[in-house]
Amino acid sequence: MRVGYLGRKGSNTESAALDAYGENLYGYGTVPAVFRAVANGEVERGVVPVENSVEGSVGITYDLLFRTDLSIVSEHYRKITHCLIARPGSRISDIQTVISHPQAAGQCTEFIESHGLNVIPFPDTATSVKALSGNQYEGCAAIGNGRAASIYGMEVLASDIGDFSENFTRFVSVAHTVPDENTRERGMKMSVVFSARDRPGSLLEILEIYSRNGMNLTRIESRPVKSDPWNYIFFIDSEYSREKRSVVGELRDSTGTFRVLGIYPAAGASKTG
Amino acid sequence: MRVGYLGRKGSNTESAALDAYGENLYGYGTVPAVFRAVANGEVERGVVPVENSVEGSVGITYDLLFRTDLSIVSEHYRKITHCLIARPGSRISDIQTVISHPQAAGQCTEFIESHGLNVIPFPDTATSVKALSGNQYEGCAAIGNGRAASIYGMEVLASDIGDFSENFTRFVSVAHTVPDENTRERGMKMSVVFSARDRPGSLLEILEIYSRNGMNLTRIESRPVKSDPWNYIFFIDSEYSREKRSVVGELRDSTGTFRVLGIYPAAGASKTG
Repeated sequence: MRVGYLGRKGSNTESAALDAYGENLYGYGTVPAVFRAVANGEVERGVVPVENSVEGSVGITYDLLFRTDLSIVSEHYRKITHCLIARPGSRISDIQTVISHPQAAGQCTEFIESHGLNVIPFPDTATSVKALSGNQYEGCAAIGNGRAASIYGMEVLASDIGDFSENFTRFVSVAHTVPDENTRERGMKMSVVFSARDRPGSLLEILEIYSRNGMNLTRIESRPVKSDPWNYIFFIDSEYSREKRSVVGELRDSTGTFRVLGIYPAAGASKTG
Repeated sequence: MRVGYLGRKGSNTESAALDAYGENLYGYGTVPAVFRAVANGEVERGVVPVENSVEGSVGITYDLLFRTDLSIVSEHYRKITHCLIARPGSRISDIQTVISHPQAAGQCTEFIESHGLNVIPFPDTATSVKALSGNQYEGCAAIGNGRAASIYGMEVLASDIGDFSENFTRFVSVAHTVPDENTRERGMKMSVVFSARDRPGSLLEILEIYSRNGMNLTRIESRPVKSDPWNYIFFIDSEYSREKRSVVGELRDSTGTFRVLGIYPAAGASKTG
């Protein structure tokens, strides 16, 4: 099976894809490019980040789950350990500037400020580590993971420099499949997206459906409807089992647009709280 | 009154601050810097973006509303019109690369892709317009507003290049004040933040309080608790009037952490849907 992922070798998403699939991995520069590669059959699975425990949701992933007809087939959690990475032989006192993805840099604010470093934004962490070999990045260090440092022949100057040591990202795999409401597996999760009908209390009514059916929510997220300012779509992740399948019809009847994004095994409960 | 805002002269937030306050405006490079300036008394008000109708929430603003004790004293909406800006005399065919804030560039994806342009991320739109005068940005254009173009002596090559013409940002002003539940004004809005108690149905219970009191919600947003992976805090904006003030006690009794972030006049209803 061919698997697309966000970023290049050494990205955090590549690590998640390695854990989940092991081989035949292909990097793409953006989240939309991963979705396109799955949609047009270049790859059978696409691994993308959906949420980080420190920064919150990855908006573009939510938007594409809503706009495309790909489904979530699995979820994967990974602990994120930010390292300060530089050319071999560098010392921290040589470094004036950090190059990295703005989200990674934002998660290392205390370290960056206490060392008086400037930040130059890069499209992703692995690209910033790779860029260190170029002449224009004298006096720079990147923020990335240890794997990226070894892939690109760089050195970890400081490890675990993030503001919060408990830093996890949730990734999902997307594919061309239709979610199966009759799944026989236990310990499943269901992700849905819907627009709440345009009247007061509509979100309340939907939460009551879950409550009445004894289904715990693990996540609720709202996103703007881009073409319709100040109207929102909602994403809800919940527990799921085959006995609860009538809830899908109930939700459909109480919402405007509605789609089951996926029914898939819940990953390690210790990480999903 | 001294007013801090995000960015430099020509930023969209400066335009919002100009509309709201007219003068004595001071730019700060980041949202945390604006909050700090209000907290330490450098300025009496701070204007920051909180939500965009296309991109969604500005996570850092929500995080600081939760973490600091500043309050929201007003809200401001502005239509965002993205322009392609270059040195005077440039033609679109001269341009290979766009420099801008990733969010602004992301909102002009169709234009950028149809013209085959590369994107280099910049910390904010006004800084990218200002940078065009530098030697290293030959063949580059910035994305920003028309005001930035005239401030920095640049030219608008194409106007309204965003993917969605209905593109609004909601800004809030923050200050050192205590929200007044006994306000005599009508047409008010209340913003609150709370952690839902750690049991199923707690969010449902809170929405029921609003519903029972006949208060429409205008926004619900969840954000991760950074130090506690997969636990969330919720932000709710709702209608508010003095007669509803008992709701504050009801909410406090049903939540873990709870704070009224602000009670302030709702801005133009046509924009808040």
